[in-house]
Amino acid sequence: MKVAHSPLHIRHDGGKELHRGELVPCFEMPVRADYILAAMRRAGFEVLEPRPFPLESLLRVHDAGFVEFLRTAHAEWRAAGKEGFMLPSGFPARALRRDHIPTGINGRMGYYAFDASTPIVEGTWDAALAAAHCALTAAAWVAEGEKSAYALCRPPGHHAARSVYGGYCFLNNAALAAQHLRDQGFGRVAVLDVDYHHGNGTQDIFWERSDVLFVSIHATPETEYPYFLGYADERGEGAGEGYTRNFPLPRGTTWKEYGIALDAALDAVGGFAPDALVVSLGVDTYEGDPISAFKLSTEHFPRMGRRLAELKVPTVFVQEGGYAVEEIGANVAGVLEGFLGR
Amino acid sequence: MKVAHSPLHIRHDGGKELHRGELVPCFEMPVRADYILAAMRRAGFEVLEPRPFPLESLLRVHDAGFVEFLRTAHAEWRAAGKEGFMLPSGFPARALRRDHIPTGINGRMGYYAFDASTPIVEGTWDAALAAAHCALTAAAWVAEGEKSAYALCRPPGHHAARSVYGGYCFLNNAALAAQHLRDQGFGRVAVLDVDYHHGNGTQDIFWERSDVLFVSIHATPETEYPYFLGYADERGEGAGEGYTRNFPLPRGTTWKEYGIALDAALDAVGGFAPDALVVSLGVDTYEGDPISAFKLSTEHFPRMGRRLAELKVPTVFVQEGGYAVEEIGANVAGVLEGFLGR
Ligand SMILES: [Zn+2]
Ligand SMILES: [Zn+2]
Repeated sequence: MKVAHSPLHIRHDGGKELHRGELVPCFEMPVRADYILAAMRRAGFEVLEPRPFPLESLLRVHDAGFVEFLRTAHAEWRAAGKEGFMLPSGFPARALRRDHIPTGINGRMGYYAFDASTPIVEGTWDAALAAAHCALTAAAWVAEGEKSAYALCRPPGHHAARSVYGGYCFLNNAALAAQHLRDQGFGRVAVLDVDYHHGNGTQDIFWERSDVLFVSIHATPETEYPYFLGYADERGEGAGEGYTRNFPLPRGTTWKEYGIALDAALDAVGGFAPDALVVSLGVDTYEGDPISAFKLSTEHFPRMGRRLAELKVPTVFVQEGGYAVEEIGANVAGVLEGFLGR
Repeated sequence: MKVAHSPLHIRHDGGKELHRGELVPCFEMPVRADYILAAMRRAGFEVLEPRPFPLESLLRVHDAGFVEFLRTAHAEWRAAGKEGFMLPSGFPARALRRDHIPTGINGRMGYYAFDASTPIVEGTWDAALAAAHCALTAAAWVAEGEKSAYALCRPPGHHAARSVYGGYCFLNNAALAAQHLRDQGFGRVAVLDVDYHHGNGTQDIFWERSDVLFVSIHATPETEYPYFLGYADERGEGAGEGYTRNFPLPRGTTWKEYGIALDAALDAVGGFAPDALVVSLGVDTYEGDPISAFKLSTEHFPRMGRRLAELKVPTVFVQEGGYAVEEIGANVAGVLEGFLGR
């Protein structure tokens, strides 16, 4: 399997996040990619740098003002005499307007964000853009005939909506991959999100569309981040009605219950008869994950991969979360090798 | 002038706020009240503890589920094995649902909040309730015949909406005072908010009502907190259309420009012919304020007070912001003594 990876991911580093009332170094850290990369090489996968894509590629799933904000935010921050990482502290939440974009950098940052856990540092744009190019490159490989490909994206993407960032995510890599497959002639594309957290951004992007199915298995937002999307009653709207499916599971879920939800999710994907599949591959479902509460062990990830292979459609894997850094490589490789039937 | 003050304010202490990318002790600190109290005593004002009021008094302007959340939040936090102050990090901002209240404490906290700058500590409820009682007591004094009264509230209130807290505010003291005056037979009540920041919570509470006029002079939300409310085009809705008036001013505003806006605001209040007035009295318009950018000096606050007196209506002053702690007493006393024509 070809792996798309960019060393530029390391440019997104040095920020802190608000976590349980403390400002701590981000769980989403560069070494995650190093561990995955080592596992990819151990597995004998060919690791390639991403191709370049025009900026307009991003606008297929993101708002132009949002992309411009991400591209220029930290430079504007520095031009205003500020230093270090950017973290918003006020948001257009309940009882506030959402229809006006403040001109100042603090308000604009809050407008485009939904949490205080996603710092923007000087190199964030370079890293996020490189991750998006990894996803687009992996999708291009599959469009060109590969049966499967893996985008080693960092930062991840599935929490990023059309014009909102958060949850360590800036550009929605999986949505970009799915859209690229659509644009290359795949009529129906399914996105299956197996990250511990709901892929609220991907759901938002494809909410009103019937050509891209979004299916997610995740920890219930009743107790888990992102809290405000990912409930079972969300099924899409307009033309997209019925093309979003959520399978929320409680904290403490083991492989036994997970497997049942995975079967149901795969049934939903299979019923859609997709021409291609994008997997938002988070491995924070792992029992050792420091911020999550599912109980999958390393041996379960190859099983997940084998089940995904049964769909028998061209598949793009896109890296999302996973914060047990020493085990992340084995868990990701497990899914991919299981998929390949090794 | 009678002053309502409760020593319980000190129970709200020890939290930190996310400020410009750093977690710092709150600018809204107990010593603020100490400095104001000393100035009240120097001015010869009679300082009294607030009367008790039934919990139902709060429900005249706040949502019952919201009040219950504030009342029980920190106990629930501790029962879940957590310690220290509570600070939300994910919010129902753009591209997320606002129609579902998560059951878990983290999600519920984010649901009811709109910033990461308003910690809840063990004693927050006691202090917020005491502050609400101070405002209700000052309103009761005026209802009973006093020409004016001052509620030395801490924590402040004007950022707290019907079911949302933020901006150091939990219960909306000024809105409670205005509602109490209405309930005691004052047919038309005006709220004039002169805090540096827009009183988004008060505006939200009275947005659709014509019996309470809300007028605010504040720094433009284009660049200043709370960013997402307080623009000049917001004028109320439904029955309340025309009964909200905002006068946003740029950073760097001096007394000269402020005075012009104050005249316009007082014209709006006078045109409403109120039977009583509530002043949301923030003195963070002071040039030495550490988080604000207006240029009023201590000599301007008595002038503000004199102009307010020209309305010649029973007036309840309710303390809001002001973070230049050593000068806060003189600035607050300046407004009140100016009002009294001393
Ligand atoms: Zn995740
Ligand atoms: Zn203020």
